[in-house]
Amino acid sequence: MANITKKVSWSSRADESGAAAERTPLLNGSEPARVSRQLSAGGSLFHIGRLSTVDLEEEMTPDEDSLRGRPKEIPHNEKLLSLKYESLDYDNSENQLFLEEERRMSYMGFRCLEISRWVICGLIGFFTGLIACFIDIAVEELAGLKYQVVKENIEKFTEVGGLSISLILWAVFNAAIVMLGSIIVAFWEPIAAGSGIPQIKCYLNGVKIPRVVRLKTLLVKVGGVICSVVGGLAVGKEGPMIHSGAVIAAGVSQGRSTSLKRDFKIFEYFRRDTEKRDFVSAGAAAGVSAAFGAPVGGVLFSLEEGASFWNQMLTWRIFFASMFSTFTLNFFLSIYHNKPGDLSNPGLINFGRFESDSMAYNLYEIPLFIAMGALGGFLGACFNVLNYWLTIFRIRYVHRPCLQVMEAMLVAAVTATVSFTMIYFSTDCQPLGPDHNEEYPLQLFCADGEYNSMATAFFNTPERSVRSLFHNPPGTYNPLTLGLFTLTYFFLACWTYGLAVSAGVFIPSLLIGAAWGRLCGILLASISASDSIWAVPGKYALIGAAAQLGGIVRMTLSLTVIMVEATGNVTYGLPIMLVLMTAKIVGDYFEEGLYDIHIKLQSVPFLHWEAPATSHWLTAREVMSSPVTCFNRIEKVGTIVDVLSNTSTNHNGFPVVVHVSDNDEPAKLCGLILRSQLIVLLKHKVFVELARSRLTQRKLQLKDFRDAYPRFPPIQSIHVSQDERECMMDLTEFMNPTPYTVPMETSLPRVFKLFRALGLRHLVVVDDSNRVVGLVTRKDLARYHLGKHGLEELQLAQT
Amino acid sequence: MANITKKVSWSSRADESGAAAERTPLLNGSEPARVSRQLSAGGSLFHIGRLSTVDLEEEMTPDEDSLRGRPKEIPHNEKLLSLKYESLDYDNSENQLFLEEERRMSYMGFRCLEISRWVICGLIGFFTGLIACFIDIAVEELAGLKYQVVKENIEKFTEVGGLSISLILWAVFNAAIVMLGSIIVAFWEPIAAGSGIPQIKCYLNGVKIPRVVRLKTLLVKVGGVICSVVGGLAVGKEGPMIHSGAVIAAGVSQGRSTSLKRDFKIFEYFRRDTEKRDFVSAGAAAGVSAAFGAPVGGVLFSLEEGASFWNQMLTWRIFFASMFSTFTLNFFLSIYHNKPGDLSNPGLINFGRFESDSMAYNLYEIPLFIAMGALGGFLGACFNVLNYWLTIFRIRYVHRPCLQVMEAMLVAAVTATVSFTMIYFSTDCQPLGPDHNEEYPLQLFCADGEYNSMATAFFNTPERSVRSLFHNPPGTYNPLTLGLFTLTYFFLACWTYGLAVSAGVFIPSLLIGAAWGRLCGILLASISASDSIWAVPGKYALIGAAAQLGGIVRMTLSLTVIMVEATGNVTYGLPIMLVLMTAKIVGDYFEEGLYDIHIKLQSVPFLHWEAPATSHWLTAREVMSSPVTCFNRIEKVGTIVDVLSNTSTNHNGFPVVVHVSDNDEPAKLCGLILRSQLIVLLKHKVFVELARSRLTQRKLQLKDFRDAYPRFPPIQSIHVSQDERECMMDLTEFMNPTPYTVPMETSLPRVFKLFRALGLRHLVVVDDSNRVVGLVTRKDLARYHLGKHGLEELQLAQT
Repeated sequence: MANITKKVSWSSRADESGAAAERTPLLNGSEPARVSRQLSAGGSLFHIGRLSTVDLEEEMTPDEDSLRGRPKEIPHNEKLLSLKYESLDYDNSENQLFLEEERRMSYMGFRCLEISRWVICGLIGFFTGLIACFIDIAVEELAGLKYQVVKENIEKFTEVGGLSISLILWAVFNAAIVMLGSIIVAFWEPIAAGSGIPQIKCYLNGVKIPRVVRLKTLLVKVGGVICSVVGGLAVGKEGPMIHSGAVIAAGVSQGRSTSLKRDFKIFEYFRRDTEKRDFVSAGAAAGVSAAFGAPVGGVLFSLEEGASFWNQMLTWRIFFASMFSTFTLNFFLSIYHNKPGDLSNPGLINFGRFESDSMAYNLYEIPLFIAMGALGGFLGACFNVLNYWLTIFRIRYVHRPCLQVMEAMLVAAVTATVSFTMIYFSTDCQPLGPDHNEEYPLQLFCADGEYNSMATAFFNTPERSVRSLFHNPPGTYNPLTLGLFTLTYFFLACWTYGLAVSAGVFIPSLLIGAAWGRLCGILLASISASDSIWAVPGKYALIGAAAQLGGIVRMTLSLTVIMVEATGNVTYGLPIMLVLMTAKIVGDYFEEGLYDIHIKLQSVPFLHWEAPATSHWLTAREVMSSPVTCFNRIEKVGTIVDVLSNTSTNHNGFPVVVHVSDNDEPAKLCGLILRSQLIVLLKHKVFVELARSRLTQRKLQLKDFRDAYPRFPPIQSIHVSQDERECMMDLTEFMNPTPYTVPMETSLPRVFKLFRALGLRHLVVVDDSNRVVGLVTRKDLARYHLGKHGLEELQLAQT
Repeated sequence: MANITKKVSWSSRADESGAAAERTPLLNGSEPARVSRQLSAGGSLFHIGRLSTVDLEEEMTPDEDSLRGRPKEIPHNEKLLSLKYESLDYDNSENQLFLEEERRMSYMGFRCLEISRWVICGLIGFFTGLIACFIDIAVEELAGLKYQVVKENIEKFTEVGGLSISLILWAVFNAAIVMLGSIIVAFWEPIAAGSGIPQIKCYLNGVKIPRVVRLKTLLVKVGGVICSVVGGLAVGKEGPMIHSGAVIAAGVSQGRSTSLKRDFKIFEYFRRDTEKRDFVSAGAAAGVSAAFGAPVGGVLFSLEEGASFWNQMLTWRIFFASMFSTFTLNFFLSIYHNKPGDLSNPGLINFGRFESDSMAYNLYEIPLFIAMGALGGFLGACFNVLNYWLTIFRIRYVHRPCLQVMEAMLVAAVTATVSFTMIYFSTDCQPLGPDHNEEYPLQLFCADGEYNSMATAFFNTPERSVRSLFHNPPGTYNPLTLGLFTLTYFFLACWTYGLAVSAGVFIPSLLIGAAWGRLCGILLASISASDSIWAVPGKYALIGAAAQLGGIVRMTLSLTVIMVEATGNVTYGLPIMLVLMTAKIVGDYFEEGLYDIHIKLQSVPFLHWEAPATSHWLTAREVMSSPVTCFNRIEKVGTIVDVLSNTSTNHNGFPVVVHVSDNDEPAKLCGLILRSQLIVLLKHKVFVELARSRLTQRKLQLKDFRDAYPRFPPIQSIHVSQDERECMMDLTEFMNPTPYTVPMETSLPRVFKLFRALGLRHLVVVDDSNRVVGLVTRKDLARYHLGKHGLEELQLAQT
């Protein structure tokens, strides 16, 4: 599809600093063939097998960019898989050190670890709830302040004329606040842009997105989302809350902050990918739980996005974190709402409780719901297509931070202007009842005791607008208002998603859907002869909201449960589920889900649940990367340093072999060692010769590896003298002696299943005598995907 | 612990018929050493490695039973793992036939398959809902009839005296109905006894329990549960509904009924363990969903009990089945309740809706809830210990069907007598309000316009009693009534569980808990000075019910969600979760969960989520079974027939090797073939020689294997002539050429993880040259478990 010249990448910063190669070493086997041929096979380093990697620069036509001497900006298109993303390793490296530690540990030790895990999950829940509460209250207070000032201004000028001054005030307010939020995102931490859900999806899938779980990201995210919501953009705060939960989890579970340079010397056992990913799942669940008051939905979200192997205790812990997060949030909110301790207060249910009595549905309404689901799926696909084009446009032309800030300000000003215009020209006046729950009723040109109905939708935070659409009594909105609102908000929301601000898409989607859903309800009620009870507009608003959200994000089980929990009514489960299902089926016919589009545009090697259905004719032999750079069990330091320093390959895992014959012959596998382990070994100079001379030298322990985790130093920072290069390193103790292997004839689905189910990073392909012939990594599997015309193969690129 | 002489086994019938060995072939490598030594290594059959199997009869002291000449009844104790259970194979045998079929299939073909899966799930949901509805209505009508008759009788005799006649009438009624239910279970299909949840747990875990998903089992289960509930036993109908769902799923998904000898020639693709297990998960979920009106809870139940590898589409389909089941049930019930089509009718919520306004809870109540959880855990453990002893007693002395029927009748009569006595001596009279919802208010000795309060608890189906305890206004029960009721019902329920009747334990547990929970609520209200709003007894009844149920069954996440959905109130999620967690922690301190106890008493090789924590010092070398019976790629028919016919070994999977050297040398692995595949090959006489002579012979297809699934004929039924014995069989095309393997040094947790995550049945252990040295099967992993004194090893036995 569209060729993109410059990419606004999730990790664009690393590109710009030029240190990308150091910080994000590539996967093994990914080296372009040309480079590997140049590499002199010095010492006992050897390559096995045949070449299969795509050589990007040879196959693609050079672009003007590369002519202008910007080699980093390789032209590439959508059908590309980036090699810059590292994978997480969900498989423990069971080397001797690890096994010794595990064997030393008593049963009580394991019990203590288990208890620590629960404590950590509790803390994750607590802090996530706290942050969510902070965001909630900050948005509430600041938005309240803003709307109060603007409202007074409008009221003043309604009387004396010159409402354009109010408009300017409103627009400037919005633009200024959004500018603040956009500046911190664009200049300080670009990864904090957007909702964060695609990034968390990738992380849980096993892709390491640089800086996604850092403290700085959290700060920018929280600050940014408050600014965007208060700035009146068509955004929600839910996505960022989920991302915040994940960051908190990554921080708390490690017992230290690398950014703050503080190490609390606790939870050291959990300093590895396996454990960390579990906690990040819990954090994401806690985030969902806090965002929607949906603890079960949170657990299901984590599972849907992340789980490969389901474990009962883990799930139970995730649920605990979720529960704790909702609990914390509700507790503090109940204090804020002056009802301290009243945890079953219905005001704590996000979208307001739907009472079954007034909102009953009947069998014959189900076809209507399904039709609405189809409409939602179609509209969602439209939204996604528009947003896709917009994102392509942004990647091409709006990639400088200052441009991004200006775009965000523009959107903010336009949002204010459009809203104002809509309110100004609206003639939909509604009486202000005694028990009205409008926060900021705008009278404008309405009669006394009445208010402008359009303003309840526009002159409000989006979350409150959703509530109004769900729960305001029939007759509160007239159809024209709703129609116009839907139309404008649809385009505003679509334009907003992807700006360099921290903001989610859940609430805007719900709002669009609620508006047209309510419109459907009103139309149905007017069609049906009698004033029948069934066409309650609020009910249709809910269905519409579900349909639109489902059509955009394409989540399934978790979204059903989130909607049920956020509305506090379980009997709506069935219609919501049917609607989401229809929306997904219809939507998928046209275009992927929004998050998937953005993940694809970043060329992330994302692994789906199963291998493509028609991939049985592929075997490990075709899929694997080769030649594989292997090491001997006892290897020369110089060779290791050379291999690790080779920036053009940047392999991350190396099979360790018994060196039987000469260079080109495959050798027997006896283990697997990771780049990170080798780096630590080099740093501590664990050389055979030194061990002999310095007998008192402290033996390397697992702790040394954990202390270095997760930011292992680049190889360039480790000084190895010419003498040391001649030393030997014994890898036996540190390699994983039992890596998972598959024979060459294994079919792709089988390889995929093993890889995905166990969350592997490297899978060694062996021949019938256990000799290494290839290595399968994430990108080898991710590049096969099912396109419109059957199985397609994505190309690999260094960008 | 206790030595058991005779075991009332889940598959006792097979034992009695003497055909056990044929029908339930054992796992490979499980042969007692003594036997394998006797086996003459004829032809190219050879054994590799060293012996590790426990020889039961040599190590254990002979019991008087074996002296009396009953060799089938080997003495064994609880620390035993039965070898009679086959495993399910969740790993496809990717042989050439399979790959050819998959490669032939177009993308549209896969789409059609996917659509069929959805259709099947819809059907599963529909039929499960229908069956649940049938059970519901049958119980309602029949119990109504019974209580009406007894009530009229009691009223008659209250006036004229001679209530003992009423008692006898009641007791005889109960005993007669229960006798009916017990006879069909004990004589016709013993596997239908109990709740069925332990059996379904085992099935989903990957253990094939004989006859558990047959049509006959379903019929007996449904008939049995109606009889038991109508017969007034302290049982629920929820467990059997779950079992029914699983049976329906197994039947529908295969498109045929072996019992009815009907093959509809549809869904043939799904005739293998992998697919069938997925559908059974969906069926179990649909069952839970129908039983409690909890579709999300159903999905979580299936996942908690069964899932190993979580797959989004699968989960989504399971959810669809669940939803459809609730929907069907609700639709038909709404017709039954004369409100056709009103699907959000609160009357459809199982335990009645808890309205948040009247039942709010507050922060300071949470410690109270936790204390109740601890009490529930303790009481649950007591229940389990008592039931454990009772089960041991039953296994020893009550193993004849007629004895079982008599015991069931006795329990029925005693239940009626105790109930009657309690009601008779109760002086707790309550005024019969105008809006009372007592179905059968008994006046007895109360004044006119009043009714006996004890009777609302006893003279009712247990499910209705739970509802009354949850929702009757404060003051309906006096504390003494509740205390006495708790005490008697506790023992009655404990005695009842394990009878040879089809009955669940959910509702009795809830009832016990609701009774003492409500008692707590009343006591709390009386302690607190003012008539404060918070101590609503119904709320405490709910918490107590959750605590007691959690203490008995020890389910976690799924139970929380089930309770939330069954009460229709999401705000109770947090307290219920805390209570269930406390109950589980406290309960686990004393004794395992009820289902786990019963699974253990059956010596089922049940795999938990993870290997025992302290098992890192074990490696595949210690764990694996050896010697392994291997076949050559081209093998003599006689050898194969001999190996398969050897009833003392009954291996199920055979590594296929390249025969390099002489007998005792390990040979290179080149595939894995299953007993079932060999049987089909023998049946169709796929011999090399015949293929040459009869060129026109039809090539064996995957269909032939599917037609034989799942009841492959025993080897004895296949006639192989002496000439044919000399023929050769080429296994290349039929074996799985890429079985999963692990090196000998792999640690047990790593082996366990691979085995469990992929749902394997056989895992080949190889040396560093890919030569077969052992085989790991389910029982090799299941026998290591964490006891009170660290890691324990269970012994293997043929029973």
